[in-house]
Amino acid sequence: MSTPSTDGIFLKNCWYVAAWDYELLDGARLARTVLEKPVVLYRGESGQVVALEDRCCHRGAPLSMGRIEGDCIRCMYHGMKYEPSGKCIQIPGQDVVPDKLGVKSYPVVLKDHAVWIWMGDAARADPALIIDYPPLRQSDQWRGLPAYLHYDANWLLIVDNLADFAHLAFVHTKTLGGSEEYAYTTKPVAIERLADGFRVERWHMNSDPPPFHRKVIPNKNDKVDRRNIGRMYIPGIFFLETTFAPAGQGAEKGGPLPAGTRQYRNCQFMTPETRRTTHFFWNYLHDTDLDDPNVSLSLCNSMREGFHEDKAFIEAQQKLFDADPDTKLLAIASDAALAHFRRTLGQRIAAEQAKGALAAVA
Amino acid sequence: MSTPSTDGIFLKNCWYVAAWDYELLDGARLARTVLEKPVVLYRGESGQVVALEDRCCHRGAPLSMGRIEGDCIRCMYHGMKYEPSGKCIQIPGQDVVPDKLGVKSYPVVLKDHAVWIWMGDAARADPALIIDYPPLRQSDQWRGLPAYLHYDANWLLIVDNLADFAHLAFVHTKTLGGSEEYAYTTKPVAIERLADGFRVERWHMNSDPPPFHRKVIPNKNDKVDRRNIGRMYIPGIFFLETTFAPAGQGAEKGGPLPAGTRQYRNCQFMTPETRRTTHFFWNYLHDTDLDDPNVSLSLCNSMREGFHEDKAFIEAQQKLFDADPDTKLLAIASDAALAHFRRTLGQRIAAEQAKGALAAVA
Amino acid sequence: MSTPSTDGIFLKNCWYVAAWDYELLDGARLARTVLEKPVVLYRGESGQVVALEDRCCHRGAPLSMGRIEGDCIRCMYHGMKYEPSGKCIQIPGQDVVPDKLGVKSYPVVLKDHAVWIWMGDAARADPALIIDYPPLRQSDQWRGLPAYLHYDANWLLIVDNLADFAHLAFVHTKTLGGSEEYAYTTKPVAIERLADGFRVERWHMNSDPPPFHRKVIPNKNDKVDRRNIGRMYIPGIFFLETTFAPAGQGAEKGGPLPAGTRQYRNCQFMTPETRRTTHFFWNYLHDTDLDDPNVSLSLCNSMREGFHEDKAFIEAQQKLFDADPDTKLLAIASDAALAHFRRTLGQRIAAEQAKGALAAVA
Repeated sequence: MSTPSTDGIFLKNCWYVAAWDYELLDGARLARTVLEKPVVLYRGESGQVVALEDRCCHRGAPLSMGRIEGDCIRCMYHGMKYEPSGKCIQIPGQDVVPDKLGVKSYPVVLKDHAVWIWMGDAARADPALIIDYPPLRQSDQWRGLPAYLHYDANWLLIVDNLADFAHLAFVHTKTLGGSEEYAYTTKPVAIERLADGFRVERWHMNSDPPPFHRKVIPNKNDKVDRRNIGRMYIPGIFFLETTFAPAGQGAEKGGPLPAGTRQYRNCQFMTPETRRTTHFFWNYLHDTDLDDPNVSLSLCNSMREGFHEDKAFIEAQQKLFDADPDTKLLAIASDAALAHFRRTLGQRIAAEQAKGALAAVA
Repeated sequence: MSTPSTDGIFLKNCWYVAAWDYELLDGARLARTVLEKPVVLYRGESGQVVALEDRCCHRGAPLSMGRIEGDCIRCMYHGMKYEPSGKCIQIPGQDVVPDKLGVKSYPVVLKDHAVWIWMGDAARADPALIIDYPPLRQSDQWRGLPAYLHYDANWLLIVDNLADFAHLAFVHTKTLGGSEEYAYTTKPVAIERLADGFRVERWHMNSDPPPFHRKVIPNKNDKVDRRNIGRMYIPGIFFLETTFAPAGQGAEKGGPLPAGTRQYRNCQFMTPETRRTTHFFWNYLHDTDLDDPNVSLSLCNSMREGFHEDKAFIEAQQKLFDADPDTKLLAIASDAALAHFRRTLGQRIAAEQAKGALAAVA
Repeated sequence: MSTPSTDGIFLKNCWYVAAWDYELLDGARLARTVLEKPVVLYRGESGQVVALEDRCCHRGAPLSMGRIEGDCIRCMYHGMKYEPSGKCIQIPGQDVVPDKLGVKSYPVVLKDHAVWIWMGDAARADPALIIDYPPLRQSDQWRGLPAYLHYDANWLLIVDNLADFAHLAFVHTKTLGGSEEYAYTTKPVAIERLADGFRVERWHMNSDPPPFHRKVIPNKNDKVDRRNIGRMYIPGIFFLETTFAPAGQGAEKGGPLPAGTRQYRNCQFMTPETRRTTHFFWNYLHDTDLDDPNVSLSLCNSMREGFHEDKAFIEAQQKLFDADPDTKLLAIASDAALAHFRRTLGQRIAAEQAKGALAAVA
């Protein structure tokens, strides 16, 4: 019943994806726990996106069981009405509403179909800090379907997963990977440590198109030179740039991409629900057959299939850690990116806590 | 695995409803946890109602898996036989039964179809302390069906719910309430603080009959003057007197009720199963069409429908409190009855503990 | 989330049954928790039985989701390959495998279709300490089907159950027992306290064949003299020798068994999964109709039916203990064997801990 503090567990002063905008269609009041806080998300009648503490200040009923009125929301237990600011502005049967009545309001920004939320100090919630991912809005170049998956695992286990492409060979042999060879014959050509994450690049020359790609291309047996460039940013934002160039045309030399090259842009957003569960958002965007909805759908389904393969491993890891929190793990060479990310994130969380402690005694 | 003490959580020296008598028909051995204690309830062959600790003193098997023999019950693991007093009187294969062998027996009283149980000091279990509710036995004036619902919530959240009729407007608009107007245009005419609870009275003049009432009356469109009088008693006993008088006949002036008035009598008994779950018993009794079983059934079903609406809110509250036990709530004007009840009950529990502490050092 | 130490809970330096060999057919990688440790069991391609910690040393993925290669197993997350010794011998994409990389390997012995595992100090894992049960291999004299059941209860509650045959009368009246008379008119003729367990013997003269036996014999109405000899050994190994002799032929006098006597040999192995769950293995072997598979099947099914009757009681006990760990139990005369076993096991566990503590300071 007791709730340990989330201090030191999550980075709070940063933007997280809380939802895709399709989740707020038609007056939905979306109940979503973020960093262990209950939040209700909705769009007011003006179109404004609102995020409030999902717990009426009166008796603690969820506002997500409430009713949208204009841009306000009314608790449907005793009728308390709240502004987007969180201020309570009406109590049926009571003439005066004391100023102190209200719920916490969280800064939210709708950008390129993603709803970003700031769970920390609202005064520091600068929308300019939201990481930009142009493919999400460049619909003349990129198309894809936004999607969601829930993980019964800490979000860092998903970050770990994405930090080492070698898992493609074993976990995703028949879906996203294509062959075990990938782990043996290819290596990252670069692992760059960034101030707020990492960048890894890996080539697989003269290879068969992996199954997810094969499904949406006409010449299924032509060899490809495959390049993956992954970039991970704190707190859990991943961009993957994938290129399939016709094999042997020199794509690896860095000039213009050979004719017939197909590209993908993939974003993945990992948002902690609790310390042991995660909201996982993604969109896998393609640059060819933009007007063929079956291509978007096939790729979305292929990714979902692959992520479920990851999920089996990642949730199994979480169960084993739960059963024995003292589990000791041992690093291998390919853990460089993973280790850098966990160290950097730990420093950021520690700095945030120190600043909070200073503020508290000032 | 550890079980925190229930001291300070529950009032122990008082009568709680443990069951309706229909639950003990045909030799049932009803396993029911009350105030976090396992209890088996049964009627012996003489008709006597018995309540014993539901845990054989030998190896801890549940007596509710046992067999009734006369007014005794036999554990069907190794055959230990217990009297209604809890004393063990037979061990198959052993000639002498030591005096110390036995289980706790709880005082129980069957009154007006309700089985009342006393979980505290048995020496103080005076049946005269059982609160009387005559409509349950006045079958020439009142008819209704006894019913049961289980809540995954602390019983005080149900008490809170019943303390403010304004929730009828929002939670039960289309079932028990009838309109949101109820919250805006009516107010309690009285909130009386009693030594052991509270009394609230509220009128809704010239209103449409609410849906549950409409279903069982012939003139569905005649306006009514509606009066609700609720009385709540420690530890969680609620009586509701509802009157629907033809509108504009002066029912509010206090004389004899106008011709065509229909009345209901409703009792609700909230018994803690654990600190976060509750047994909820009710009977909604009507004064008209006494011999039409469909009227009783319709009202019982309407109440069940309405209580499920409450249950959705109340169990959601419990989940939010579980997730964050430090939740701060803010009172509004209509919380007067609720606040008085919680304060008074807290005092009674504290006094009971102090007395127990004194007895322990005496 | 925290995991209390298992010290003082389980005896570690002894052999436990971890599986029947049929569970490892066809390349199965059996995930089985033993004494709260995750273990993967498999047979390598040479036939060797291997038991490893079911948690890759790299990122904690379960090896039971891996692939058998020769006698090795490969983690299918990033491809780490492990020898039966637990040593990691390959990391795809990394040339050198540091010596420290590996997982714990547990000593295992396959004997008479049972896979025995040693969870304590591997240096002390002497196969000669495995208790011998010849009927499991004497297929010219005994036939039966190995079987498995999972209990949501501490294994000692199953030991308790087997320590007092009186429960046959009440729990198994219509299956394994046959009559309540068994508890009243028969008594153990001997309860022997052994250094590592106990031996009990009980006769039921001139009785009807119990239902499970009746199903597989031709003369269903002939009275029998029934003898049960049970032997229980630390940590939870039970052998039951059952004899049904034609009534009145003097079987109890100890000479050669009368013509027409039928015998059964039953072994039961209780292995703690966790402190509140148990793996239960058994084989009920018969000496007649060796080549009729329906006899083996009928007996196996009868036992399963009977064990489910026990399970209902035993799991109910566990729930009551969980709800109130301070439950006080009171012994009766027939608890002599049970009490001796619990005392002896407690001494063995304490001695093991003391030795461990000495080793730690040496």
